[in-house]
Amino acid sequence: MIKIGIYGASGYTGQECLRLLLRHSGVEVVAITSRRYAGLPIADVYPVFSGLTSLSFMDASPQEVTELADVIFLALPHSESMKVAPLFWESGKKVVDLSADYRLRDIAVYESWYGKHASPHLVPEAVYGIPELYREEVAKTRFVANPGCYPTSVILGMAPALKNKLIDPASVIVDSKSGTSGAGREPQVGSLFCEVNEAFKAYKVGSHRHTPEIEQELSRLAGEEMNISFTPHLLPIDRGILSTIYATLTREVTSAELSEIYRDFYAGERFVRICRPGTFPNVAFVRGSNYCDIGTAVDPRTHRLIVVSAIDNLVKGAAGQAIQNMNILCGFPEDMGLEMIALFP
Amino acid sequence: MIKIGIYGASGYTGQECLRLLLRHSGVEVVAITSRRYAGLPIADVYPVFSGLTSLSFMDASPQEVTELADVIFLALPHSESMKVAPLFWESGKKVVDLSADYRLRDIAVYESWYGKHASPHLVPEAVYGIPELYREEVAKTRFVANPGCYPTSVILGMAPALKNKLIDPASVIVDSKSGTSGAGREPQVGSLFCEVNEAFKAYKVGSHRHTPEIEQELSRLAGEEMNISFTPHLLPIDRGILSTIYATLTREVTSAELSEIYRDFYAGERFVRICRPGTFPNVAFVRGSNYCDIGTAVDPRTHRLIVVSAIDNLVKGAAGQAIQNMNILCGFPEDMGLEMIALFP
Amino acid sequence: MIKIGIYGASGYTGQECLRLLLRHSGVEVVAITSRRYAGLPIADVYPVFSGLTSLSFMDASPQEVTELADVIFLALPHSESMKVAPLFWESGKKVVDLSADYRLRDIAVYESWYGKHASPHLVPEAVYGIPELYREEVAKTRFVANPGCYPTSVILGMAPALKNKLIDPASVIVDSKSGTSGAGREPQVGSLFCEVNEAFKAYKVGSHRHTPEIEQELSRLAGEEMNISFTPHLLPIDRGILSTIYATLTREVTSAELSEIYRDFYAGERFVRICRPGTFPNVAFVRGSNYCDIGTAVDPRTHRLIVVSAIDNLVKGAAGQAIQNMNILCGFPEDMGLEMIALFP
Amino acid sequence: MIKIGIYGASGYTGQECLRLLLRHSGVEVVAITSRRYAGLPIADVYPVFSGLTSLSFMDASPQEVTELADVIFLALPHSESMKVAPLFWESGKKVVDLSADYRLRDIAVYESWYGKHASPHLVPEAVYGIPELYREEVAKTRFVANPGCYPTSVILGMAPALKNKLIDPASVIVDSKSGTSGAGREPQVGSLFCEVNEAFKAYKVGSHRHTPEIEQELSRLAGEEMNISFTPHLLPIDRGILSTIYATLTREVTSAELSEIYRDFYAGERFVRICRPGTFPNVAFVRGSNYCDIGTAVDPRTHRLIVVSAIDNLVKGAAGQAIQNMNILCGFPEDMGLEMIALFP
Repeated sequence: MIKIGIYGASGYTGQECLRLLLRHSGVEVVAITSRRYAGLPIADVYPVFSGLTSLSFMDASPQEVTELADVIFLALPHSESMKVAPLFWESGKKVVDLSADYRLRDIAVYESWYGKHASPHLVPEAVYGIPELYREEVAKTRFVANPGCYPTSVILGMAPALKNKLIDPASVIVDSKSGTSGAGREPQVGSLFCEVNEAFKAYKVGSHRHTPEIEQELSRLAGEEMNISFTPHLLPIDRGILSTIYATLTREVTSAELSEIYRDFYAGERFVRICRPGTFPNVAFVRGSNYCDIGTAVDPRTHRLIVVSAIDNLVKGAAGQAIQNMNILCGFPEDMGLEMIALFP
Repeated sequence: MIKIGIYGASGYTGQECLRLLLRHSGVEVVAITSRRYAGLPIADVYPVFSGLTSLSFMDASPQEVTELADVIFLALPHSESMKVAPLFWESGKKVVDLSADYRLRDIAVYESWYGKHASPHLVPEAVYGIPELYREEVAKTRFVANPGCYPTSVILGMAPALKNKLIDPASVIVDSKSGTSGAGREPQVGSLFCEVNEAFKAYKVGSHRHTPEIEQELSRLAGEEMNISFTPHLLPIDRGILSTIYATLTREVTSAELSEIYRDFYAGERFVRICRPGTFPNVAFVRGSNYCDIGTAVDPRTHRLIVVSAIDNLVKGAAGQAIQNMNILCGFPEDMGLEMIALFP
Repeated sequence: MIKIGIYGASGYTGQECLRLLLRHSGVEVVAITSRRYAGLPIADVYPVFSGLTSLSFMDASPQEVTELADVIFLALPHSESMKVAPLFWESGKKVVDLSADYRLRDIAVYESWYGKHASPHLVPEAVYGIPELYREEVAKTRFVANPGCYPTSVILGMAPALKNKLIDPASVIVDSKSGTSGAGREPQVGSLFCEVNEAFKAYKVGSHRHTPEIEQELSRLAGEEMNISFTPHLLPIDRGILSTIYATLTREVTSAELSEIYRDFYAGERFVRICRPGTFPNVAFVRGSNYCDIGTAVDPRTHRLIVVSAIDNLVKGAAGQAIQNMNILCGFPEDMGLEMIALFP
Repeated sequence: MIKIGIYGASGYTGQECLRLLLRHSGVEVVAITSRRYAGLPIADVYPVFSGLTSLSFMDASPQEVTELADVIFLALPHSESMKVAPLFWESGKKVVDLSADYRLRDIAVYESWYGKHASPHLVPEAVYGIPELYREEVAKTRFVANPGCYPTSVILGMAPALKNKLIDPASVIVDSKSGTSGAGREPQVGSLFCEVNEAFKAYKVGSHRHTPEIEQELSRLAGEEMNISFTPHLLPIDRGILSTIYATLTREVTSAELSEIYRDFYAGERFVRICRPGTFPNVAFVRGSNYCDIGTAVDPRTHRLIVVSAIDNLVKGAAGQAIQNMNILCGFPEDMGLEMIALFP
């Protein structure tokens, strides 16, 4: 049994890691940390765990956790992760960092969007963990920068088109919509039920921090520098991201051919499902699962491609993908512990 | 007192017309029709009206209604409206048609999206009723084609940019999201609570019937033929449409200038509100009101304009705009009966 | 024009008072206060007010407000209201207090549920403002203790049965369910979207502070001391309280007779609607309106009466009833500014 | 591998059975039937199953299904089940019937609530399948009447109190609230998103068909005939039932003692969790899991016991309990395939 520590386990992402890991037959969670809830059983903070685990939150140092665990999930906010990650790294243990701190390779870009980086020396060690694209790199590292939720939905949605040079890289427009769990569990007016329910808005228009992450990864796929338009919106649902992506085609392609290209690209992938031609994803059909569902269309009237991709932001967009990466790091089957069928309705 | 008939009053749009008209001090609703509910008090079908009106649904012919009413609202499904509209027209009464049947001026276009038109001769009589753009035309007609909900949000959002030649007409991408009342009250699996709640999807990608209506009206504003990409999505909320619109700028403009251009364009308009620079609309802030809120931004990195517009699909997107048109037709102040402040939360 | 001040206007209740008062033709709101948002236009904090008012929050003392206003609404949390209410009282102005601080006549009871009272001398001056029951008393006072939301739904639901001695006072069980706006706008984990949405729970079982208020008022109606069981629950909706009330009948009565008794009791009341026999209220049918809808049934198998009552907690349960009381205080028609038809859907 | 057929698999309950059975390591689903969707892959009707099963709906006779399967789940509406169940029974195969048709032992009672019974001779063969109470009987039968969703929540909530003679059987009042999936997938106005969302109502007051089922089972536990008051309500959530139950105590008991009595009663039960004293269940904490969470309190002021119980209506209230029964029938560990941790948020 591989021993797991979750550092910063009191948020929605941390508890989701625990929820999945408790049902993973190859691992045992030995430590969960939280300063705020130190000493409290997690079942008191998240009653879903009643009767299922006796784990309590610890206020433990990285050193204490590395003494207990073989693999550490960092489920901290950005700017916090970069303060402790070096200590985990130096212990020689395997690390999956769910924060944004090691995703951007260009420190200057990171600092212009997030502020001063506390451990830039560690950035080159991190592998950007989208297994469908970088499985081999993940297998060779012991430090994974787990992708952001919006970026996961966009990168998986765009990879086949970019790799196949189907679209003009300058033409990409990403209109994304996220469920509210993406905003975390920190109390703030904007996340209150009465502010989100029966509401819908765009936010951080032109200024969301996932923009450079998406651009970095799409540029890598395109083989050239890309700028995109990216507009996130807040959905009155708990879980789910749906990204609707528009781009100008570089050559004639039918909807059927396009679908085939996508199907080929992801052939054999356990966690990407290409919708039947003419059908499109719904976040409800991936809720609680590790799937990324993708639907595609060609709009011949405007010579554009339209891609719609859907994930559960807490699973494929966070904890599930982190476990997928852990499985690769540890030599487990990649889908181990990730067999969940979406909960519908 | 002007006497009003609502022909086809049993759907969400029809009852919304009634809700607003009952509080309009210049009119009296004298007839509401429904085949299905004939004879039933509307308060039995929509208990919000208990104690507020003794109106019952009639199964009345157009002739019977025109004998009672001075102005008729047609709140029928498309393809139904065109069968009875000529009878209302010939009576010499004023008509506001909330269906799609007289919005498209080119019969061939209509028929390619909706099927055979039953009364094409009436199409040239209809004025497309967006008062902010065509107030004078509305004042001169007695037959208004009340705009669709998606088109209203897009046309008002794009008019200042197109009229000012700020954008490349070929570059317009419209990503719209609508609350579920837009789907009407006809029972179908796709509108069930458990299918819509906690769900989000794109639908009719590249094939929604509001596309030609939007294109017709944007072309008119641009002074040239335009094709757009239009993707509607279904929101798990009752009311509200938010359209996020992207287009490539034809010249340098700052966000501040852009906001000013929009503000100037709609100066004096009672029902269009331009958000302060840096802020964007939320459907929750127009719920139950006749406002169209518009936020704008320039994305200098991609040389694009981003416009976000929000309306209540049942009010400014249907019944409210219909009454705004009726007010013009009847010589009432344009905002009479439309003073509602949005219900929040 | 009567001049109005809203003291503590930044919460959901305060803004709801403003929303309604801006459309009341007999008054003008001249001051709204908030320490936190002092100096900010309310339209920046609640964009529903954009273009509708130029009011900004003031951080004003009671004295400053009484110099401007004729009637003051206190929309403060309990324990805050009692600190400033005496200053307003002594100014000679009219006051409607929306907090709990002056509702309980027995100071000892108040203090056992809420803590030390800062101005017990003012308690005897306050009239408990349910106009349907205490219209004359309200007309004679200038200080109204506006009832709580749960109590309003229960008292109106039980008054006809208690006054007619139809039920055993010891047998009353109240199972209430409230929308989340009742929890206010203060950020806390329990009010976050992801905690409330798709969730439902009982809370403060046997210990909710509205219990003594309900008991005080039901006892007054029964003419004897009563204890009740009261269990509040949290609904994943914005607005609305539905109370389901059970009590043992003291004599044989049919459902039809019961309905008639309720209808008689509230004959002529503008804001109470008795549902047709066999039908029951829905919070959706009172949303945004000042109605209390009541449905009744006799369960002959258990010899119990079942009453279901529904209100909008922010309107009849707070701001609407406050304005109804203000109308009485000021000699306006009681329904002035309260003609709203519920927003459905 | 045990072979499973699901007869009538196109509703929410049927697909939930499939969802769970696909992840049960001891069984294989070999047949799913639906007249309406005959020939269609279930993944086309419920895209959650895309890539997970190649099963298509069959329009098969009971005989055809019994030739393929060892255990049959009947997920048909009541009145349909009783027409085909005898054919399954006579085949000698094991049957779990999820309808109401074999739950009521007294045919006269059944017929007064549901209409004529088509196969009353089979009723005595059926075991009422609440494993926590009737595990041995289930183990000995091959025909299980799987309990209703409301009854499961009430019976588990009341069993310890009734068995311990803590309460007056004549005093029981059950106020239940259910998510909308309980209404099924049949399109009807009352189940539309816009009718349920932001709404809350009591329905079938005093006349819900689960009343006799609850009374039958509570009477059995009490050892005497009982009548209860039962009021169901419709919650704007997908899944979950919360029942708040009131009863008069027959003797003094503290909240702590009460909690201990409940804990003892369910000691060793895998799927019943007693909340810590002072805490109560939330449907969100059982969503997608097979748990029944129960919280208890004594209200000394009224000498009543209050019990709150929560289940997922589609899992412990239907498909999960059906599989729990199947596990017993087949000699599997009772929790096999039912290890799901609730999905939160």
